[in-house]
Amino acid sequence: MVKSLCIQLINPNTSQAMTEVMAQTARSVAAPQTHILAVCPEEGAPSIEGHFDEAIATLGVLQQIKAGRDAGVDGHIIACFGDPGLLAARELARAPVIGIAEAAMHLATMLATRFSIVTTLPRTLTIARHLLHQYGFERHCAALHAIDLPVLSLEDGSGLAQEKVREQCIAAKKSDGSGAIVLGCGGMADLAQELTIELNIPVIDGVSAAVKMVESLAALRLTTSKHGDLDYPLEKPLSGRFAGLNLREHYV
Amino acid sequence: MVKSLCIQLINPNTSQAMTEVMAQTARSVAAPQTHILAVCPEEGAPSIEGHFDEAIATLGVLQQIKAGRDAGVDGHIIACFGDPGLLAARELARAPVIGIAEAAMHLATMLATRFSIVTTLPRTLTIARHLLHQYGFERHCAALHAIDLPVLSLEDGSGLAQEKVREQCIAAKKSDGSGAIVLGCGGMADLAQELTIELNIPVIDGVSAAVKMVESLAALRLTTSKHGDLDYPLEKPLSGRFAGLNLREHYV
Amino acid sequence: MVKSLCIQLINPNTSQAMTEVMAQTARSVAAPQTHILAVCPEEGAPSIEGHFDEAIATLGVLQQIKAGRDAGVDGHIIACFGDPGLLAARELARAPVIGIAEAAMHLATMLATRFSIVTTLPRTLTIARHLLHQYGFERHCAALHAIDLPVLSLEDGSGLAQEKVREQCIAAKKSDGSGAIVLGCGGMADLAQELTIELNIPVIDGVSAAVKMVESLAALRLTTSKHGDLDYPLEKPLSGRFAGLNLREHYV
Amino acid sequence: MVKSLCIQLINPNTSQAMTEVMAQTARSVAAPQTHILAVCPEEGAPSIEGHFDEAIATLGVLQQIKAGRDAGVDGHIIACFGDPGLLAARELARAPVIGIAEAAMHLATMLATRFSIVTTLPRTLTIARHLLHQYGFERHCAALHAIDLPVLSLEDGSGLAQEKVREQCIAAKKSDGSGAIVLGCGGMADLAQELTIELNIPVIDGVSAAVKMVESLAALRLTTSKHGDLDYPLEKPLSGRFAGLNLREHYV
Amino acid sequence: MVKSLCIQLINPNTSQAMTEVMAQTARSVAAPQTHILAVCPEEGAPSIEGHFDEAIATLGVLQQIKAGRDAGVDGHIIACFGDPGLLAARELARAPVIGIAEAAMHLATMLATRFSIVTTLPRTLTIARHLLHQYGFERHCAALHAIDLPVLSLEDGSGLAQEKVREQCIAAKKSDGSGAIVLGCGGMADLAQELTIELNIPVIDGVSAAVKMVESLAALRLTTSKHGDLDYPLEKPLSGRFAGLNLREHYV
Amino acid sequence: MVKSLCIQLINPNTSQAMTEVMAQTARSVAAPQTHILAVCPEEGAPSIEGHFDEAIATLGVLQQIKAGRDAGVDGHIIACFGDPGLLAARELARAPVIGIAEAAMHLATMLATRFSIVTTLPRTLTIARHLLHQYGFERHCAALHAIDLPVLSLEDGSGLAQEKVREQCIAAKKSDGSGAIVLGCGGMADLAQELTIELNIPVIDGVSAAVKMVESLAALRLTTSKHGDLDYPLEKPLSGRFAGLNLREHYV
Repeated sequence: MVKSLCIQLINPNTSQAMTEVMAQTARSVAAPQTHILAVCPEEGAPSIEGHFDEAIATLGVLQQIKAGRDAGVDGHIIACFGDPGLLAARELARAPVIGIAEAAMHLATMLATRFSIVTTLPRTLTIARHLLHQYGFERHCAALHAIDLPVLSLEDGSGLAQEKVREQCIAAKKSDGSGAIVLGCGGMADLAQELTIELNIPVIDGVSAAVKMVESLAALRLTTSKHGDLDYPLEKPLSGRFAGLNLREHYV
Repeated sequence: MVKSLCIQLINPNTSQAMTEVMAQTARSVAAPQTHILAVCPEEGAPSIEGHFDEAIATLGVLQQIKAGRDAGVDGHIIACFGDPGLLAARELARAPVIGIAEAAMHLATMLATRFSIVTTLPRTLTIARHLLHQYGFERHCAALHAIDLPVLSLEDGSGLAQEKVREQCIAAKKSDGSGAIVLGCGGMADLAQELTIELNIPVIDGVSAAVKMVESLAALRLTTSKHGDLDYPLEKPLSGRFAGLNLREHYV
Repeated sequence: MVKSLCIQLINPNTSQAMTEVMAQTARSVAAPQTHILAVCPEEGAPSIEGHFDEAIATLGVLQQIKAGRDAGVDGHIIACFGDPGLLAARELARAPVIGIAEAAMHLATMLATRFSIVTTLPRTLTIARHLLHQYGFERHCAALHAIDLPVLSLEDGSGLAQEKVREQCIAAKKSDGSGAIVLGCGGMADLAQELTIELNIPVIDGVSAAVKMVESLAALRLTTSKHGDLDYPLEKPLSGRFAGLNLREHYV
Repeated sequence: MVKSLCIQLINPNTSQAMTEVMAQTARSVAAPQTHILAVCPEEGAPSIEGHFDEAIATLGVLQQIKAGRDAGVDGHIIACFGDPGLLAARELARAPVIGIAEAAMHLATMLATRFSIVTTLPRTLTIARHLLHQYGFERHCAALHAIDLPVLSLEDGSGLAQEKVREQCIAAKKSDGSGAIVLGCGGMADLAQELTIELNIPVIDGVSAAVKMVESLAALRLTTSKHGDLDYPLEKPLSGRFAGLNLREHYV
Repeated sequence: MVKSLCIQLINPNTSQAMTEVMAQTARSVAAPQTHILAVCPEEGAPSIEGHFDEAIATLGVLQQIKAGRDAGVDGHIIACFGDPGLLAARELARAPVIGIAEAAMHLATMLATRFSIVTTLPRTLTIARHLLHQYGFERHCAALHAIDLPVLSLEDGSGLAQEKVREQCIAAKKSDGSGAIVLGCGGMADLAQELTIELNIPVIDGVSAAVKMVESLAALRLTTSKHGDLDYPLEKPLSGRFAGLNLREHYV
Repeated sequence: MVKSLCIQLINPNTSQAMTEVMAQTARSVAAPQTHILAVCPEEGAPSIEGHFDEAIATLGVLQQIKAGRDAGVDGHIIACFGDPGLLAARELARAPVIGIAEAAMHLATMLATRFSIVTTLPRTLTIARHLLHQYGFERHCAALHAIDLPVLSLEDGSGLAQEKVREQCIAAKKSDGSGAIVLGCGGMADLAQELTIELNIPVIDGVSAAVKMVESLAALRLTTSKHGDLDYPLEKPLSGRFAGLNLREHYV
């Protein structure tokens, strides 16, 4: 018998629309026994397009991780392509935590010798480059592209951003010599399957990739290491608006 | 409704005993609807402990990949820690192909900031180092250890090799500052779960990790890119004992 | 005539004692016309010893950056060895922002071909390793050492932590083949000068190093680039407890 | 008095024509006392243009290495630009084994600070990139170019492929800022000398380079290390069509 | 009270005009109490545009370092973008030694996540690339550009070279996605401030950057490590025209 | 018929004894038709044990390169393990120039997957590390060892240094997991052959390795690229004691 699973999908920005898009995509690939608990912070930034936005968002992510842990979820997904707060979240969590950039990049390397990234604004390319560097995939990424539209244009209903993503993917396939494309924004989650079919190469969405990573780790009974630097944060009184993140009682 | 899945687990060496150990581990973590088709080459090397053995084994792997493809399997696993023939197999396959070293290393980076590897003979450390380098995980690996016993000692029933693995894992946890351990041989597949519990850190077996990777890719409808360098091998008449690998008829 | 300068020294933790230690060190090396404005967040973590603590601290850092910018300071220092929030702060700031790990590491490479790091708890070594990787100094760092005492032990008045730092520095000089030592915690700022004399090699404190970096950039009339990914954060309404970080009115 | 030398030139594909081209080039640069024993496998792939072809070819290479060793040759050359089976061959061999990509790349770094590569099909570029990475020459290679014609077009007598190679070399000299060019296919061996003269920069063929490397090692009485991971393969019964590679009797 | 400081600015080429340009720039940014002692070798190369020129210049640099040390200067600057003789000079010196490429590159990484370099002749790009590699900044440099005019064209009074520098900087800002530009020649020192204003991004001159680095180190009472490989050269009799560099008497 | 060859072996230090040792080794491995022209500068440093010594030596090397070029030699060897002045020499030379560190390291990678280095004084280890980094062999070097005796102790007739080299080689073989050893000083040239026999692993001397590299390049009619950054130095009047290096007349 298969154990049912609850995966907390954390949209680090405050956009309900984007949370919904990602939740639908997540549910469409999740195993039948997996429940997707899609959340976003009540307070924070409506979209994440830089280091500053990421720093703001990280607090919301941690608050959600704590809530998810209290609720006993089996895994957490940080559903923003910069994977904001990933290591901090891993310290805080008991269950596995997966970032969507991480998930998409890892899978891409298993399907092609090199991949391209298509993201939103040019200023976010630095964040993607830093992740490639940190995860070890600099050599596996042939090129990075930006559609030069903000994240929320993916939610404006016009389809313009989606069309630009499609065009960039087609151009990237042609020019980069890559075998796969990684979509560089959670808001593009719903585009991967159709682009994969149209372009006839793997176009990878991190949200769905992360769902399967969490399910995989759960099935393997593997969870975030609590030995060493990802151990629970040291007990110390957080003050003021951070008091909600105090952890003492949870360490039992 | 969930589609049933057939994953071909290819043991690149000719040891039936090891094939069986790995098959059992694979089945213990596979989804209910996943069928594990465990095979090993009829001809080849009884164990793989160097570059030469790997080269021999690669032929057997490719033959099995072709057979698996003909049988319509949904994915292939190369179940030897050197991931022998991985890219060649990807060219040949229609479905995803995952190596067990690859699968274990990727997952390890999602659970700890650094991991250690425990393998069999010292001479195989070079192979592991090359994989770390190729996959981008050199910085994520804190140390490599060898128990200095051959692969088949894991199958001799004495339990000696298993005890040595356990000792090395305990020593590695203590000395390396790593948060996780990757088991560096398919023949250690059955040790991961109990060591994870005893050591209280993730001890990762690539066989089970690879099963979940293939299941994940299948659920995401992602498969090996056929655009570029992993496209099917160019049509050319293979002669002699390689004729069995001729591919022409399969390209439709 | 020399322009007077105001440098905001931001201690990312809430320890007044540590803020004071760092302020004194900063003032002891600052130019006569430099005013050191030492601050720490009112709310947050009393010490920073992991990724989670850093994430909390980053919010306080950004709040202080905003306040400093409003007050028209000429530069900001992030005085925690993990340089938490450095790139986010640079987006937000008009003036230069320097992290103390960054400052110390850069200077170390100008004084020796390789340096060692001595820090507090082992779990913070990962953070230091990530910075070395990000800044490009992996090869310039011969070894990292931890005294295995928490940050605040530096403020407990017993001198025990200070003595351990001294011992580790002496041991590092002997064993690592390094020509210089970087002190890996803002709370060690007051130890650098005497250890430099006692050990007869450069022992570098990031707080004082950062003061000179900011003074240098000010004298050169260079400031954080606002072209590209360090441009001011895009205008978007931050909600709830983050509203205080809304920036709109400052962009004129 | 100079010892006469027998170098086994192994063409890993089954093309007699290409074997002949390479043998002639090898002989044209060999020392008077060097005998070139040019061979190719009787069975295998007619050309090598991908990972799959390489895997097939590796078996043929090993069979030839064994035959060469039995015949007492003084060195072996693997004459395909992917250096297929290089480390496996080194395990098996008593004498030095040199790959032509390896030989050409090493020499190129001694003649120019950066080189370009001109090869056949685009899909082989990945193999070249992996070799650059493995050998340590990523930074020394300014660019890789493909003429987009298959290997055997070099043997079709039309001269078209040769002309394309020439054009690409000229274009590479102009655009890449490289001081030298490495020819990326054994079938281009006969073009190096005239292109070197016409372009007035070193255009390097790996076949002739490898001949001189083997002669050099022989003169220095240096051979493949048998200490550690390149030691002879462990004794184990290879079965079926691999039985011909059984080695036991040779270890005396 | 502030200690007065004497910084020796060493132009490694023999151009008095360039020495003067750099001295003026240095003085314009130096602290009031800093004296700039601008020197150039009496013998050597009139400009430095390659490895050979650098080797010649290094001798002049060392002679000046020795003279500066005898004169008791508080720091030395090597004012040629290749930083010729930097480590040799550090061995010889008692005070800090800073190269202008080094100083500019370090500061650039503190102001932008990536920078571009604009230099003189294409053949010097290799030198810049080697420095990026050695200093750890390969990833921080987005692109290198050459105006394709010799160094001394900056001194011909026509303003042509200056105009080309300006054009390249504008083009680099547009094309490279860099947030800052590093000027790749000491002879461009006087252009940085106005280009910074015109382009509205940091355009960094290494001469002025180096002045501030030396002042910083002096204020921090940090100097070149004499522990290990930057210790004073071992005592040995230098003969002939190198006798002037004999050091014995200075070691007391 | 084989063309006779003249290789200029340049000892960068002024020790006649060491020049003689290296010349004998060079001659013992050279082809019959190769003439070894062993030279050392008349003026300079008696031994080279640091960056400063290297800078001095470089001038002597260049003077000899010029003399060798005037004499029409077919290749040059820079016979000091730091390869001082290698790129400058390549600019100046018409024929190939090979450094002994370079030659030894390249060959080592063809004989073993990893090698160790045994050199003289610890302070020279930095130079070896820089070369590994520059040549691309950081990953191929398992460890570096110093016997902690100065270079000239190899010439004192006591045999003490030689014995220490032997001991270090034995220890390195045992501890490093390396398959080969590179001798890190030209003065150890005469030890390689006997240590290779005694230790039964390749112990590589750069002097003899370089002889074979030059012979190889000559046979291949390949020489230093004169396209790009290794082109002849730009014509400019060198003054004073450098006038002897003026090159104008040679450019025809």
